[in-house]
Amino acid sequence: MNAVVREPVTAAQQLVLLGTGTVGAAFVRRYQQLQTRGLAVPALAWLANSRAARRCAGELETVLEQVRRAPAAADPRVALAATTPLRAGDVVVDATASDAVAGRHAGWLQAGIHVVTANKLGTGAQLQRAEQIVACGAASSARYGDSATVGAGLPLLSSLRSLVAGGDRIHTIEGVLSGSLAWLFHRYDGQRPFSDAVREALAAGFTEPDPRVDLSGEDVRRKLLILARASGLALDAAQVQVQSLVPPALVALPLAQALEQLSCIDAPLRQQWRHARDEGKVLRFVGRVDRTGAQVGLRALPMDHPLAQGAGTDNRVVIHSDRYATQPLQVQGPGAGAEITAAALLDDVLRIVETAARPIR
Amino acid sequence: MNAVVREPVTAAQQLVLLGTGTVGAAFVRRYQQLQTRGLAVPALAWLANSRAARRCAGELETVLEQVRRAPAAADPRVALAATTPLRAGDVVVDATASDAVAGRHAGWLQAGIHVVTANKLGTGAQLQRAEQIVACGAASSARYGDSATVGAGLPLLSSLRSLVAGGDRIHTIEGVLSGSLAWLFHRYDGQRPFSDAVREALAAGFTEPDPRVDLSGEDVRRKLLILARASGLALDAAQVQVQSLVPPALVALPLAQALEQLSCIDAPLRQQWRHARDEGKVLRFVGRVDRTGAQVGLRALPMDHPLAQGAGTDNRVVIHSDRYATQPLQVQGPGAGAEITAAALLDDVLRIVETAARPIR
Repeated sequence: MNAVVREPVTAAQQLVLLGTGTVGAAFVRRYQQLQTRGLAVPALAWLANSRAARRCAGELETVLEQVRRAPAAADPRVALAATTPLRAGDVVVDATASDAVAGRHAGWLQAGIHVVTANKLGTGAQLQRAEQIVACGAASSARYGDSATVGAGLPLLSSLRSLVAGGDRIHTIEGVLSGSLAWLFHRYDGQRPFSDAVREALAAGFTEPDPRVDLSGEDVRRKLLILARASGLALDAAQVQVQSLVPPALVALPLAQALEQLSCIDAPLRQQWRHARDEGKVLRFVGRVDRTGAQVGLRALPMDHPLAQGAGTDNRVVIHSDRYATQPLQVQGPGAGAEITAAALLDDVLRIVETAARPIR
Repeated sequence: MNAVVREPVTAAQQLVLLGTGTVGAAFVRRYQQLQTRGLAVPALAWLANSRAARRCAGELETVLEQVRRAPAAADPRVALAATTPLRAGDVVVDATASDAVAGRHAGWLQAGIHVVTANKLGTGAQLQRAEQIVACGAASSARYGDSATVGAGLPLLSSLRSLVAGGDRIHTIEGVLSGSLAWLFHRYDGQRPFSDAVREALAAGFTEPDPRVDLSGEDVRRKLLILARASGLALDAAQVQVQSLVPPALVALPLAQALEQLSCIDAPLRQQWRHARDEGKVLRFVGRVDRTGAQVGLRALPMDHPLAQGAGTDNRVVIHSDRYATQPLQVQGPGAGAEITAAALLDDVLRIVETAARPIR
């Protein structure tokens, strides 16, 4: 291929939304808003979850409700299989938290099908799967939109990638990467039981459907892996040292039971909070990676520490590199919530449409 | 043209560097580093300033010195004219502060010549010129790299553009946009004469060659215009209300004389500083734009104000939009200095080479 000519990218044919939870529903709402405002979004052709898949004929809300209310399928793969008549150029939007769906990302890319995902299990789980996704993306004209996976669309992955593309070497990435844990520790006053706040966050949709995914640090581990890998650090999941907030006794329990017994975390956290306060510090759940390794856990930080800033569900990331060796690059903003996650997914969809339709400037 | 096929972008043929000041010299150094590290940078073929233009044959340092030491040309345009044998696909790097050079950006784009600039007078001056640059860029396959114009490559313009592309509407952009003024007001202790600190910043290369460009708020006005226009606000230079720190008496004086008499700003600034301190506030030189207008000037901010944070030459920008209505997007990092400005210029050069050479992913 002549180096001066760009390989054409197949235009986005149709959108297929997998996952109809809070993010999926918010995606459908925003999709309709953007359509009303005349933005060139491809037609939303399929809505599917682990229970059912429906072609979008008629009112989207109706179809969404049908899929959401569908009875549990004997075999979840059947529902997903129904969405397999995909053609090159289609855009699959993964708003699930499904490992099975993430396992298909690479194959879709290989088939020229664009993938836009909020599901962190594609590039945030096993290194081999992540590398396969990158390799398949590089070998095909399909694109992989992952800006919703970390920071709900904050300019984190894009910033790291352009630094690396510009010949910069990333030294450390340190951050408050969980919007739900940020919200919990900003809110926690050392008095009210921490477990109450967790139930509140769950009700508000700030946590994963199972808050243990957040409290265990698993969500932060995945985000840290995605950031590290985007920076050229081939980090394996096992290389991240994670200090979980979930007591061993609660790990294996069914969700409802785990929530009932969650109050057992209140006493130890109250103690840590008071100890930190007595030293003039605050508790933050932090992820950190450098070339020597990665750690995830609760840390007591002085008030003036960059990661002690921020409010609500704010994510906050501090990047040191050759270029930003003394004064780091810092990005802060809301990093959780169905609305901004859905917006980040649609940003990626629009980028794919844009690059497929006309030359990049 | 078939919507699914991307118009090819002509590959970058050669680099032409205009401007051999501190940024130009840093560009040459970094260019050599990237070459040594095997990054695909096009050949640097010409070095030019307002006095001379030389083809790059032999040692780059030698050519750079020749151009830097060249005697003043009778007509600066002559030297620039020597660089006019440009072909479509060439990349002109504008590291000057020249209005004449900025006046040629649109024409170069029209001729298919890529423009990468740290010169803010292209899109940060008259609205008509800025709109012409955007129009010519859109009509040609050449690209306009402007990430060095604001925040020395911090993810500001890119973030605003992807928000807008994603259907977001920007409400306000507020920021400490001058690395030199940030440095000065972080350093200023209300005791030592402010004018001494200005001379120090000038010596350290933190200010423009004429620090009045910074102190007058003109530099911030230009950056604010670039940010606003990238966000879709067609703001004219005259619509920005600027409170200058330069006393009227010093505006027309020759640089040397103005620097001698600069101490006349010390007393009023000391007074403002003390007044702010008595209210528990700090002085920051801030630019702010929303749909109703734009202001640039010195403000007294409470310690916990987002723009009161940061250190050294840190820029700090706070963006409110539909998406970031309650919790803003905040970006912070060093926004001045020859090294990071040169790095931002080379980032844009590499992006152009990359998009010209292969499909975007």
